[in-house]
Amino acid sequence: MNIIKSPEEMQCEALELKRAGKSIGFVPTMGFLHEGHLSLMRLARERCDVLVVSIFVNPTQFGPNEDLDAYPRDFERDEALCAEVGVDLVFYPKPEDMYAADASVWIDEESLSGVLCGESRPRHFRGVCTVVAKLFNLVLPDLAVFGEKDAQQLRIIERMVRDLNFPVKIVRGPIVREEDGLAMSSRNKYLTEEQRKNALGLKKSLVQVCELVGQGERNVSNLRSAMTQLIDDIPEAVIDYIEFVDDQSLHPVDSIEFRTLVALAVKVGSTRLIDNIVVSV
Amino acid sequence: MNIIKSPEEMQCEALELKRAGKSIGFVPTMGFLHEGHLSLMRLARERCDVLVVSIFVNPTQFGPNEDLDAYPRDFERDEALCAEVGVDLVFYPKPEDMYAADASVWIDEESLSGVLCGESRPRHFRGVCTVVAKLFNLVLPDLAVFGEKDAQQLRIIERMVRDLNFPVKIVRGPIVREEDGLAMSSRNKYLTEEQRKNALGLKKSLVQVCELVGQGERNVSNLRSAMTQLIDDIPEAVIDYIEFVDDQSLHPVDSIEFRTLVALAVKVGSTRLIDNIVVSV
Repeated sequence: MNIIKSPEEMQCEALELKRAGKSIGFVPTMGFLHEGHLSLMRLARERCDVLVVSIFVNPTQFGPNEDLDAYPRDFERDEALCAEVGVDLVFYPKPEDMYAADASVWIDEESLSGVLCGESRPRHFRGVCTVVAKLFNLVLPDLAVFGEKDAQQLRIIERMVRDLNFPVKIVRGPIVREEDGLAMSSRNKYLTEEQRKNALGLKKSLVQVCELVGQGERNVSNLRSAMTQLIDDIPEAVIDYIEFVDDQSLHPVDSIEFRTLVALAVKVGSTRLIDNIVVSV
Repeated sequence: MNIIKSPEEMQCEALELKRAGKSIGFVPTMGFLHEGHLSLMRLARERCDVLVVSIFVNPTQFGPNEDLDAYPRDFERDEALCAEVGVDLVFYPKPEDMYAADASVWIDEESLSGVLCGESRPRHFRGVCTVVAKLFNLVLPDLAVFGEKDAQQLRIIERMVRDLNFPVKIVRGPIVREEDGLAMSSRNKYLTEEQRKNALGLKKSLVQVCELVGQGERNVSNLRSAMTQLIDDIPEAVIDYIEFVDDQSLHPVDSIEFRTLVALAVKVGSTRLIDNIVVSV
């Protein structure tokens, strides 16, 4: 397994692989890998000749009061996990090599980005779009895998690929959960044992929505009340949002329609967790 | 010479050319080709295996009161000129095939774009950056040639390539002038015979700056006065800007330094003309 730190070297290597006729699969990550990431890598592994994983805690997608410095990192462990999954190349750049001091070009998505996480993290998706475009141009993948846990990010990346015509196929990777149902996240590490147990309520509230919809409930305000009640009962939990939106446009809906994305963000203690499910009728 | 209208087909063709190991040279244009464009094509022609020219009057770089509908078009003539220069492939898409009705992803350059043309054309460079990124992703060029006549655009594209890591080498093509010195432009067609003659004053004012600098003048406010005086004498001429800026940062300078870009935009009648020169001491 090859480890490349220099963006220029990464691009040279990618160009050479393309010239040799190899297909490139790509999984961008911020490291501190868990089974969720590994499942994305396995999805890419079976669909390409060369599998590239990037490990880069991207500073431009963190807000000024967010957890950039505290974000967990463990490169050696990540490296071993990548090797196990059969990654061919790990791209592990430094922030100062990715962003010039006078960097001035940014990519904005202006329709899907204002709601859900975009509301409390105003510049987040600008940072995500910009770094993903940069990574696409450095890694030159034929396909890239993004997880459904970051539902809004996934849809924004798909929109960027469409609107900027990137020659990259986006593959959606299903949410991977702990045995008890908690969606895997690098941020779960922040939780105390008690919080970890309580955080299960997030998944439970989504399951409850499915059950209610299965019983015929379509009214979003009733469904939201049921979720809110369940989550409000969790100690230390503060709801950032519980939203019911059209799966494509991310516009809020009043009643469950063809495909509705139910997404939530909840702070448990100081840890912000997200989860989601798509319900269809 | 192949003519492709569909963006999807263009990208497929480009991917196939790359797989076959061909290098692709690219000249993006808005058509109504003149010797200026042809000189860019010849520069690309000698540096690549396959030469692609796009002809696309990009709606998103025109402001609401600008000349989008009136912009001159003559595809058959353009086609013949491309064939003469040895273009292999003309990409000639329709606006509705380039932009989805719900397009929502845009590229902004935020340091070089606010001055010069960006001041009177606030969304212009957002449109330029976005369409050039799209064209790069569809044509997949190894190198692309941009003219020095659009000095600010050239520098913004270079910045975009750097900041978003596009695997594209940008080649600068020198300004091509009519025999009497007027910088070639598709918009020259709008000028009456009288305006055409008078428009020569733009070039003369730039030559004058060079002469004055050659004589030792360094003070920008003196140099600007001399230019303004000369252009104010042109009938029907209204100055949009005359700027002296650092060639790299486009920040205004007070005295002529290492490399200073002298750029002007002047309306002659209703036709907006631009010209520029780099002076160095």
